[in-house]
Amino acid sequence: MDATERPLSPLSHDEPAAPRLVTTGTLFGVGMGPGDPDYLTVRAMKVLAEAPVLVHFCKKGKRGNARTIADAVTRDPAREFPLVYPYTTELPPDHADYVAALAGFYDDAAGRLADHLATGRDVAILSEGDPFFYGSFMHLWRRLKDRFPIEVIPGVTGMSGCWTRAGTPITWGDDVLTILPATLAHAALVDRLRATDAAVIMKLGRNLPKVRIALAETGLLERAVYVERGTMAGEKVIALSEKPDDAAPYFSMVLVPGEGRRP
Amino acid sequence: MDATERPLSPLSHDEPAAPRLVTTGTLFGVGMGPGDPDYLTVRAMKVLAEAPVLVHFCKKGKRGNARTIADAVTRDPAREFPLVYPYTTELPPDHADYVAALAGFYDDAAGRLADHLATGRDVAILSEGDPFFYGSFMHLWRRLKDRFPIEVIPGVTGMSGCWTRAGTPITWGDDVLTILPATLAHAALVDRLRATDAAVIMKLGRNLPKVRIALAETGLLERAVYVERGTMAGEKVIALSEKPDDAAPYFSMVLVPGEGRRP
Repeated sequence: MDATERPLSPLSHDEPAAPRLVTTGTLFGVGMGPGDPDYLTVRAMKVLAEAPVLVHFCKKGKRGNARTIADAVTRDPAREFPLVYPYTTELPPDHADYVAALAGFYDDAAGRLADHLATGRDVAILSEGDPFFYGSFMHLWRRLKDRFPIEVIPGVTGMSGCWTRAGTPITWGDDVLTILPATLAHAALVDRLRATDAAVIMKLGRNLPKVRIALAETGLLERAVYVERGTMAGEKVIALSEKPDDAAPYFSMVLVPGEGRRP
Repeated sequence: MDATERPLSPLSHDEPAAPRLVTTGTLFGVGMGPGDPDYLTVRAMKVLAEAPVLVHFCKKGKRGNARTIADAVTRDPAREFPLVYPYTTELPPDHADYVAALAGFYDDAAGRLADHLATGRDVAILSEGDPFFYGSFMHLWRRLKDRFPIEVIPGVTGMSGCWTRAGTPITWGDDVLTILPATLAHAALVDRLRATDAAVIMKLGRNLPKVRIALAETGLLERAVYVERGTMAGEKVIALSEKPDDAAPYFSMVLVPGEGRRP
């Protein structure tokens, strides 16, 4: 538990309060939702419109999905900068070189944001989905939370966007829902799938063949739905058993809807 | 998978299209978010403002939380009616009388909504959190989806609101997250907790003592955070190990944050 959260309300710096010393800015973690800008929250819209510094993560040479969502609200290069991940080709995420490079990247990024915050400027980090649910924002939050006020704005998760567009309620009654990274070993995937009523399997990439096998082994393949770019341009929804290939980009997941109590 | 979903855009019936026969209305499942109306989505705001019929679930003599959230947008009794659950005292959810009463209630409610939809009126059902995540809306969706166009608007879940206000990222790196109803038997709770990195335990009520024991047995009690009415008036956040009593109202949950990869 952490006490750095602030209640909602500030951000408009218009009304001049009593004269004060230079105070620090607030760091905002803005949940950008699953992709369709209509699923941004009222609070996110306000912070995107007003924050003097907007920051987004991206890979080298790419724009970043969070930034694309923001196009619906703001295009103002003067107050923006990207945080470019150090690698475009992917090393295994537990490889020492990769971990070290990422740690250095987050340290540098936190330093850049701290420079703005220290001079009193609010900084908003655009975060896909919900900032505290597998968000890169968390790595900056961890480095800055004891030095600056932080407001996290929850967002609609990517998985909510996917099960909405798939037209499949994910949990009924007392269903257990398990959210699994497809990076798990085959045996672990099978064990977790056996012990749950509903599942969301993320981080598919080249793991899709392994996921198919685990689903077949647990009798869940016929129930599984593949969703790619849910709520975004190029959205695809297809029963996994009918998907003809194993291509699965970063913004894709497999849903196994629960079948609990339905009076 | 289901094809009743419509792409976003209609709802304003202002622009007169080509003359047409009476068409049916659209049923909207509106995700109302975790409680704070600032966490409503842009799409939810629009539907709440424009839909000619607004419906919300509630218990007899109570107002219903979804309706309270909507106060920030609309107070227009002329276009609203409540759907009042048949029981105020709680029977076990698998009791035959309870299931039969609920089924009758949902059948009646679906009939009332169908009457509006058949005459071309859009109907919006206010749904706490996300409509397809343990939502009562799903029971009406199931009864009406083959007869009327439906648009589901995903929402920020109650659990996102809770971990946001607790100031605890819930999942890092490749953490597995399991969402558990506290109604599970002790042994099942222990098994599921052993097999996960992070957990959200919902439907606490009188199950909190059992949840405490299961968390202690799996070494997770010290990490567990209790959140009550997250993002709403009367919000409480406390380490579960420091919570002095076992009172846990409907809008409460226990979070067990993951501790995965943090470069």
